This record gives sequence, structure tokens and C-alpha cells, in this order.
Amino acid sequence: MSQKIINKLCIIGVGLIGGSLARALKKAGAVGEVVGVGRNVAHLEKAKALGVIDSFEKDIAIAIKGCDMVVVAVPLGSMQSVFEKMAPVVTHDMIITDVGSAKGSVVKAAQAAFTEIPASLVPGHPIAGTEKSGVEASFSELYDNRRIILTPLETSSSNAVSKVKSMWHACGADVVETSIEHHDEVLAATSHLPHMLAFSLVDTLAKMDAKNEIFDFAAGGFRDFTRIASSDPDMWRDICLANGDALVVMIKKFSDDLQLLSTAIENNDSSYLEKTFSRAKKARDEFCEDKKQTS
Amino acid sequence: MSQKIINKLCIIGVGLIGGSLARALKKAGAVGEVVGVGRNVAHLEKAKALGVIDSFEKDIAIAIKGCDMVVVAVPLGSMQSVFEKMAPVVTHDMIITDVGSAKGSVVKAAQAAFTEIPASLVPGHPIAGTEKSGVEASFSELYDNRRIILTPLETSSSNAVSKVKSMWHACGADVVETSIEHHDEVLAATSHLPHMLAFSLVDTLAKMDAKNEIFDFAAGGFRDFTRIASSDPDMWRDICLANGDALVVMIKKFSDDLQLLSTAIENNDSSYLEKTFSRAKKARDEFCEDKKQTS
Repeated sequence: MSQKIINKLCIIGVGLIGGSLARALKKAGAVGEVVGVGRNVAHLEKAKALGVIDSFEKDIAIAIKGCDMVVVAVPLGSMQSVFEKMAPVVTHDMIITDVGSAKGSVVKAAQAAFTEIPASLVPGHPIAGTEKSGVEASFSELYDNRRIILTPLETSSSNAVSKVKSMWHACGADVVETSIEHHDEVLAATSHLPHMLAFSLVDTLAKMDAKNEIFDFAAGGFRDFTRIASSDPDMWRDICLANGDALVVMIKKFSDDLQLLSTAIENNDSSYLEKTFSRAKKARDEFCEDKKQTS
Repeated sequence: MSQKIINKLCIIGVGLIGGSLARALKKAGAVGEVVGVGRNVAHLEKAKALGVIDSFEKDIAIAIKGCDMVVVAVPLGSMQSVFEKMAPVVTHDMIITDVGSAKGSVVKAAQAAFTEIPASLVPGHPIAGTEKSGVEASFSELYDNRRIILTPLETSSSNAVSKVKSMWHACGADVVETSIEHHDEVLAATSHLPHMLAFSLVDTLAKMDAKNEIFDFAAGGFRDFTRIASSDPDMWRDICLANGDALVVMIKKFSDDLQLLSTAIENNDSSYLEKTFSRAKKARDEFCEDKKQTS
């Protein structure tokens, strides 16, 4: 059986990610009490009715008092204002982590909000989620065998890092550490770029004259390919703004390769096409094989 | 109960598509006898052992004799050579159709192979499939509620069109007719372009230094997004070569829009990003809603 890791947890932003974390910790018996914070009272009442949180509070400074763990699970564009509200009341024994999909911007937000970044702050990012959002979509198994990337700062205390790790382990997740810069580059490649391609593809097709027939003739492959284009637009606007530098580099790299492919098609270069598709199939099949072994 | 529509069916190319067609027709009681043709005897023996075909033959001219329906289910690059082998023995009462993903190239292949395109030829394309290939992957429900696009020629006899329609209806499919040009444009947008993006993305990432971490950190969204990159490379080389003109136009259109998105990210243009992502989410959610209603 898991033991209690957190006495009083504050989750700021009780959506899919924050809500699933609360559910998983409760299920594991790893948390005493959960306080939810949000801007929408009806939404918080729903979270309480679902048993995701025990109580809620609109004022961040009041909510985090007495908490030994605060998880900031708000869109990236709201990080700084949340940190600013926390700053006056943060204590040394209050561990703080977040779930943002870009980490450089979270550190910038913390630098701007706290005069000195607290040693108890450990930026984090769970590689989990669905295209759905909101507490209604949350479930306790979301982090089962999923990867959590922590990007501790030089200033982060080992005690804080250790407690954040324990929290995620209690949810069944696997925790790895990497640098902020490396995280942001890798996520731009593996998550942010694919989302841009899916959004951009659907939008390109939706603007075409034959729009109706295009969607009408689309098959199962198209549905899977574009699933991530059903993701929350506001969240993705924030991710683009937060990780723009790395993302623009990846879009350029992708576009250059796509242009080479297009040129090969124009030139009937069957060897180039066959080699490219074969390499891609091999890499993708290996990726799925690896994921099968680890999950 | 379905009635018998075809007495003797020849399927040239007994893979996922041809094999599933044979299975579906047999299950519906719509076919008397099925003869398979292929280049690989071990493969044909497997298809026979699985009950997908009743017999097989390597020589096309011998195989199609006495057949009232011939379905050519070979890669697009092999169409012309198959038609050339059929040409000397084709009769007026032998209906011919194909399952190629591009239709202009099939008609070109037919023009080259037959001195005069037979009135019994009705080009077709089932919008169905998985990323798997081979007869082992075939199943009788593949065409259930799926769309089949027929692109009859001016020379196609109404009797031939009607019989090909009946064949697909017996498999549970919905049949629509359109022009060859329109088919090729719409499919370039909805199927061929997404496949290019998936292949190209996986290949771009696989070439990066951080390749291992990139695939290691990839989540469920990436798996769905790239599923179609596990498709058969040879088949997709052929599709690119067969529908290159329409595909290059679509790649250009997509790339231009992606460049606008990249510029918006560089300029922190949050309004552009939000609008684009919202339009895409709306179009994609509507697409899924429509598909739910029709299937």
C-alpha cells in the first residue's frame, strides 16, 4: 500500500490534468486533503461533487496556506499571475510544481513573480493527456505508466525534487529529469510540431471549396491523424507563445524536408520516395514496439 | 439474404483490400467461386488456407477466363502490366474494376494496355483500409458502412457500373460516383497529403540527434498522429507517382498555410493562433460528429 506523501495539497486549475492528479493521489491514499482553486465556482462545485477535491477557494493566497504541496495546473499564459498571487505567502516547506508543456516560459514567469525563485519550486511536465479538457474528463489512471519530465533548477532543493517525484510515483508514473532547454526542444519536436501540423491541415482543408466532399471522403486514417486538432485552442495558443523559439525551428526543419519530398514527387524520384517512406515506417514501427514493452 | 451477384470472381492481388472484398462477398453469399492471382505462391496458398480464395493461378490470362468479374487490387505501379496481360483475353461480359487510390493513372494505364478501353471497365476506390497489409490482415467487415468511390468513364456501360455497385453494396458499403479529376483532387487533400505529413514528420524526427529521447518522450497523440506512417512504403511510392500533380498542389497549399502559422508564432500573434486553432477544432469536431451519424 502507498503511504501518505502529502498532507494538504492545493491544485490551482482543476481540469483534466489537475483533476486526474487529485484522483490518482486519492486512490493511492497518498494525500490527506485536496483544496481546489479556479476562477469558475460552478466548475469547482462540480469538481467537489465528483470527489476530485475536498474543498475549494477562489483566493490563491488563502488556498495555499498550510499546504505542503501546490500544483499549478493552469494554462501557460496564466502562470505568472498565479505565481504573483502566491509570492506573498509562499513558505520554505511548501513544495511547488507545475504541469506546463513548455518549461523555459514557466521559469521566466517565476523569475518575474518571485523576487528570488523559491528552492521549493520544481518545474514538471506530465507526458499525458487526451484531446478532452475539463474536470469531467479527468480519471485516476491518466498517469499509469506515463512519463513525467522534471526540470529541476540549480536552486531547487533535493528535498523538493524528491517529494515531487514521490507524488508522481504514487500516481503510477515514471519520472525522468532533464534540462529546461532540452525539454523544450524535444517537446517542440514530438508534441508541439505535430499539433501545429494537425491544426494547420484541418484548417487548410476546411478553407477549400470542396470542403464538404473532402471531409465526407475522409477515412479512419484522417480521423486518427487529426485527433489532436480537437485539442483546446487557448491552451495551444499559450504553448505556441511559450515555446515559440523552439517550435519555429522545428517547423522550419519539417518544412524543408517536406519540400524535398515534394520535389521528389515532381521529379518522379521513386527511389527517394521509397527510401523516405521506408525509414519513416521503420522508425514508427520501432517506436510502437518500444512503447509496448514499457507500458 | 443477399443473392448471388457474381458467379466467378477473379481477384488479382490478394492483400488486405482484395482479401477483405473476397471475405465480405463470401460471407454475404454474393459470389460463387473466387480465383486469386498473385506473384507469390506461398502467399496465395495462405489465402486459400484461410478460405479467402477457392483456388489460385499465377497466369492472369488463364485466371480470368470464364470470370464475370475481375477486381484488380494491385499497387498502382503494377496496373498497366496487369491490364496488358488481361488485354488478349478480355470479353465483353467480363466486368473489370480496380481499387487504386488514384484514378487518372489507372485510366492512363488502361489506355496504354487496351487498344480501346473496354466498356466493362469501371474504375473504383474503396475508402477503407488499415496501416496493415497482406491477406492475413484482411477481414470481412472492412467495407461495412465505408464509402466506395466509382469514377465511371464515358465509355463505361451502365450494366457494368450497376454490377460493380451491387458488388460493393453486398459488402455493406455505400457507393458514390464522381469524376476522375475530382476524385484525385479530393483524395490528394484528404488522404495523400496527410500520409506525406506523417511520413515526413517521422523521418524528420528520426534524423535528429535527440532521436532516442524524442521517441521516448512521445505520447499517445504522437502514436495516433503517426499511425499512417506505418503504411506500406511501396504502395505509397506508387500513389505519389500516380497522383503527383494533385499532391504537389496540396503540399504547396499546406506549406503556405503552415508558413503563415509559423510567422504568427514568431510575431506572438495570439489572435491569429487562437482563430486558426478554433476554426480547425470546430471543423474536426464537426467531421467526427458527421461520421458518427453516418456509421
